Amino acid sequence: MKECNVTFLPHDRKITVAEGESLIRAALQAGVHINASCGGEGVCGKCRVHVEQGLVQDGKSERIKQEELDSGVRLACRAKVTGDVVVRVPVESSVDKSVMNLQATPRRTARIQQMDFENLKEEGLFIPPVEKIYLRLPPPDAQNNMPDVTRLVEYLKLEADEHKLELTLPVMRKLPSVMREENFTLTLTMVRPVRKNGKNIILNVQPGDRSGSNYAIAMDIGTTTIYGQLIDLTTGQCLAEAGDFNGQISYGEDVITRIIYAEKAGGLEKLQEVVVATINSVIEKIIRKSSIDREDISTITFSGNTTMTQLFLAIDPRNIRRAPYVPTATLYPPFRAAEIGVSINEHAIALLYPQVSSFVGGDIVAGIMGSGMYRDEELTLFLDIGTNAELVVGNKDWLACTACSAGPAFEGGGIEFGMRAAKGAIEDFSIDPITYEPMIFTIGDVRPKGICGSGLITMAAVMFEMGVINNRGKFNREHGTPRIRKTNGIWEYVVVWKDATQINRDIVLTEPDLDNLIRAKGAIYSGCMTLLEEVGLAMDMVERIILAGGFGSYIDLEKAMTIGLLPEIDPEKVTFIGNGSLMGARMSSLTNRIRRDVVSVTQRMTNFELSETPSYMDNYIAAMFLPHTEIEKFPRLKMRMEARKN
Amino acid sequence: MKECNVTFLPHDRKITVAEGESLIRAALQAGVHINASCGGEGVCGKCRVHVEQGLVQDGKSERIKQEELDSGVRLACRAKVTGDVVVRVPVESSVDKSVMNLQATPRRTARIQQMDFENLKEEGLFIPPVEKIYLRLPPPDAQNNMPDVTRLVEYLKLEADEHKLELTLPVMRKLPSVMREENFTLTLTMVRPVRKNGKNIILNVQPGDRSGSNYAIAMDIGTTTIYGQLIDLTTGQCLAEAGDFNGQISYGEDVITRIIYAEKAGGLEKLQEVVVATINSVIEKIIRKSSIDREDISTITFSGNTTMTQLFLAIDPRNIRRAPYVPTATLYPPFRAAEIGVSINEHAIALLYPQVSSFVGGDIVAGIMGSGMYRDEELTLFLDIGTNAELVVGNKDWLACTACSAGPAFEGGGIEFGMRAAKGAIEDFSIDPITYEPMIFTIGDVRPKGICGSGLITMAAVMFEMGVINNRGKFNREHGTPRIRKTNGIWEYVVVWKDATQINRDIVLTEPDLDNLIRAKGAIYSGCMTLLEEVGLAMDMVERIILAGGFGSYIDLEKAMTIGLLPEIDPEKVTFIGNGSLMGARMSSLTNRIRRDVVSVTQRMTNFELSETPSYMDNYIAAMFLPHTEIEKFPRLKMRMEARKN
Repeated sequence: MKECNVTFLPHDRKITVAEGESLIRAALQAGVHINASCGGEGVCGKCRVHVEQGLVQDGKSERIKQEELDSGVRLACRAKVTGDVVVRVPVESSVDKSVMNLQATPRRTARIQQMDFENLKEEGLFIPPVEKIYLRLPPPDAQNNMPDVTRLVEYLKLEADEHKLELTLPVMRKLPSVMREENFTLTLTMVRPVRKNGKNIILNVQPGDRSGSNYAIAMDIGTTTIYGQLIDLTTGQCLAEAGDFNGQISYGEDVITRIIYAEKAGGLEKLQEVVVATINSVIEKIIRKSSIDREDISTITFSGNTTMTQLFLAIDPRNIRRAPYVPTATLYPPFRAAEIGVSINEHAIALLYPQVSSFVGGDIVAGIMGSGMYRDEELTLFLDIGTNAELVVGNKDWLACTACSAGPAFEGGGIEFGMRAAKGAIEDFSIDPITYEPMIFTIGDVRPKGICGSGLITMAAVMFEMGVINNRGKFNREHGTPRIRKTNGIWEYVVVWKDATQINRDIVLTEPDLDNLIRAKGAIYSGCMTLLEEVGLAMDMVERIILAGGFGSYIDLEKAMTIGLLPEIDPEKVTFIGNGSLMGARMSSLTNRIRRDVVSVTQRMTNFELSETPSYMDNYIAAMFLPHTEIEKFPRLKMRMEARKN
Repeated sequence: MKECNVTFLPHDRKITVAEGESLIRAALQAGVHINASCGGEGVCGKCRVHVEQGLVQDGKSERIKQEELDSGVRLACRAKVTGDVVVRVPVESSVDKSVMNLQATPRRTARIQQMDFENLKEEGLFIPPVEKIYLRLPPPDAQNNMPDVTRLVEYLKLEADEHKLELTLPVMRKLPSVMREENFTLTLTMVRPVRKNGKNIILNVQPGDRSGSNYAIAMDIGTTTIYGQLIDLTTGQCLAEAGDFNGQISYGEDVITRIIYAEKAGGLEKLQEVVVATINSVIEKIIRKSSIDREDISTITFSGNTTMTQLFLAIDPRNIRRAPYVPTATLYPPFRAAEIGVSINEHAIALLYPQVSSFVGGDIVAGIMGSGMYRDEELTLFLDIGTNAELVVGNKDWLACTACSAGPAFEGGGIEFGMRAAKGAIEDFSIDPITYEPMIFTIGDVRPKGICGSGLITMAAVMFEMGVINNRGKFNREHGTPRIRKTNGIWEYVVVWKDATQINRDIVLTEPDLDNLIRAKGAIYSGCMTLLEEVGLAMDMVERIILAGGFGSYIDLEKAMTIGLLPEIDPEKVTFIGNGSLMGARMSSLTNRIRRDVVSVTQRMTNFELSETPSYMDNYIAAMFLPHTEIEKFPRLKMRMEARKN
């Protein structure tokens, strides 16, 4: 891709962007503020700039007179960079240079950490838990008429040194005809033992040589969404993927509501049936997208939180929500997926990630295993942020975990104009520190509908750093801007005037919104802090952060540190693994090592119930400020704040 | 019971019988022949005797004149012994004393060998494979909120030193509520491992203390009949039993016909369904007879021949009937009985006896295990005689087995007036060596309908020893009796004239009948001989015989040796275990030792296919005589025969 240098005057800020980037996004990256409210549709007409050197594509508008166009005036939100260009931001839509230098830090999201499959191969750990073996048995005759099973078992003992085998009735039923279909050549599908000396379970037998066709489905059973991937176990590649909303949503949005539903007569069975139906629809989609024979799917790996796992297995989850919060089990035995209604084929084995506690479930364990955190030296903080946040700290020697209720703020819940990260959500934001005029960016560059979690974090961070709000999330009531106003007794800031929205209402950010955000980030930060304290460590010892969950990919890291959601570390040390649960599920289909390691990992993952930890409340109260009562914990921010004061 | 001495004149033969015995049965036991044809109904009036001292009850008849009655004449078949008595057998219905001394040996059936439960207890082996354990767990609290399963597992590790546990999903589903029903006191139902270091499988959990209620069902799946027993696993006692015809009979009487049926579309499924239906009806009968809670049945042990076992498990048996006669498996894994439609409860575990080969199945292995033969020093011959005869020889160090097709003669098949051992079947027989007049006994002492297997053996033996037939089973055609006649070119002996029968037809024994009998006994004897030769031993080295199967209980041992069905050994050394399959099934519910031992027993049970053993045909031809071409193999008979000649 062609790179273009963009220079913004009068500040002389330079940035290199890819060809085709809009001028306004280039400005955001350069830390240059341009007033803009309409999300890039060219409706508000506020983001006028003057192209002084070079050319841009588009950016014309009825709102710009012909002579202005001729002199190089364009709308920054519509103008696309096509080469090196020098752009002047007019005085009415910027601030003077000295102020500009104090603009918020450029947007910076976490580096994406891919599943480390190549590493796995190099280490010789690409050993799927279920393998296929091609065998050529000697056919029986009058002198050697041992039973079919004995023939197979004896051969494996002699030729493959496999001594412990477990055969089930369904395999025995197939064996006589399969053996004779291609003259006693056949392919075994065999689950390797977790440990040496363990049993090999023969899952399936197929006539002839099918050892080249061995597939797995990896599946994340989320409270909201269920994702699946089809994995080729001979190459490690993902062949297809699909997702669907968890059908249980109709019975409650969150796990607690679903547990309550499960307690009703027939409720548990209904929820199990419904989640299996979603799982089956995802499987159908995946199989339709590929051209494989479903008979060749040998493995299905699952990960889900504790409640999702118990509901999937039809195990009554009622004690999860009642003190002292006892789940039924950590480890679940492997079982035939068909046994509980999953439709792949009769033999495919289901391997489930174990749980740690009622609130730290298999989805988190999957993230820990899939990210490889449990094998690394560095002291790592693993964070999966959603309505509930799960936190894990530790390294290859020890692990501690906890969960806290962050509330739905990061998913748009409890926020006046909150919404999920979808088209029209304000995802990025800047503010003119003099005029308090905003620059907004929406997902899909369309007119705004609301504010998503990452937008909210950025807004709060920028406003705090620019002095628009104080460290308790209260607006500067002295400023004369009409954007800060009191409606029905509540102070709010108008982010977008209604004419520039999709919803024909002023999109505002209110003090209660900020309060909810502070509670949410405070819960997470104090959770981390309490967890570290419990193991005798301090927050600044964290060497690395792994973010998991859909939300994590959009977070502007420096902004998240500014509001005190994350501890302040080098953004380079923050990685994003996306759906860690799915990554873990996929990883566990590719290496049997995970089945062995996961038992000890869950055993050494010390779980802390925050409600049982007295210091949590103190830490929480200390975290109810931006970024925290102790600004010393955020030295980079402190430096920027002091520079701004001067 | 009062014992009475009976003396028969003129032979001065004495016998002691129980009060109430009929005079004619007393005569049979004393070796005294009295003509009698009607089975004891007093119809033929032939069995007149003269009571000279003492009194008898009944025995009067319209056929006896008043003055005869007054002088002590009675019908021997109706007269019952009530005290010491002296009886004269009239000249017209007996032979002279010198001949009488050469009468056949008294009837002698095998000593019944009970299941050796007391011995098992003494040896400390009364350790059922499934045990129940009562546990009192510490309830969870905020400091100790480990998952329910972990709580259980940790407790078992600490308190019971049980380290390897296997839990299934259904148990996990029950656990949360069961634990909480009686304040964390509960009873585990646990399958012990076969070997040390093996896994304990937790089958079920119940609230509170149920450790005193642990039951098993032992079940013999016979081709014709299915028998079940309910066993109290805390005392070892049998609480109830029941049986029913195997519903598969409608689809074929013998295993081969059923295999052919199973090869048809849907046939296998049908036969499985039908046998499970019979099993379920037997279970219902047993449970109705007892007052136990079916939830407390933990174990169901099964034994059956190879075809019955494969049909029960819905494993295609087609290769059993085709050379080289390959069954699917020897060992079958334990499984939940409910899995294949057996209705007891959801958790009861099914333990099946392993097979040795297509024709030596789990019923025989059960007999070997149940009788304890595999643990004894003596060289033992185990014989299960039916349409197919299974033969096992060996001792605690080695075992060899084979099966041969005896044909249905012993069950009344292929015999002109053959019938099963039921009411009206001639089961015992004697003949007057001068007049060739018979004395017959029927099951139930009613008028005869036909001849059962044991009756047939006795007839052939007595006739051979009395010279009525020669060693090829041909009648003495020189005798003037009208009972030996030629009908439609076939020589026959009239056992009962039609007037004395229930069927209004002369009941005859034909030369083809004798031929079939000789083939049947020849097949079995030559099977034993070939088997012994294959392991380098001779028939006279057999120290003990164990008879199994319904038929064995009625066999007159000395007669069976006379015709060469059994090798000639001391009858004291022959025991009868009845339904060895059921005995073995019951035994295996009581001691886990059998599960351990049976694997090595089946491994060391060398199987010989007679069709693949060239010497079998030679042995068979040599055995096609009464008793055998080599009379030297039967020294007691030889002595009697020589005495008779003199």
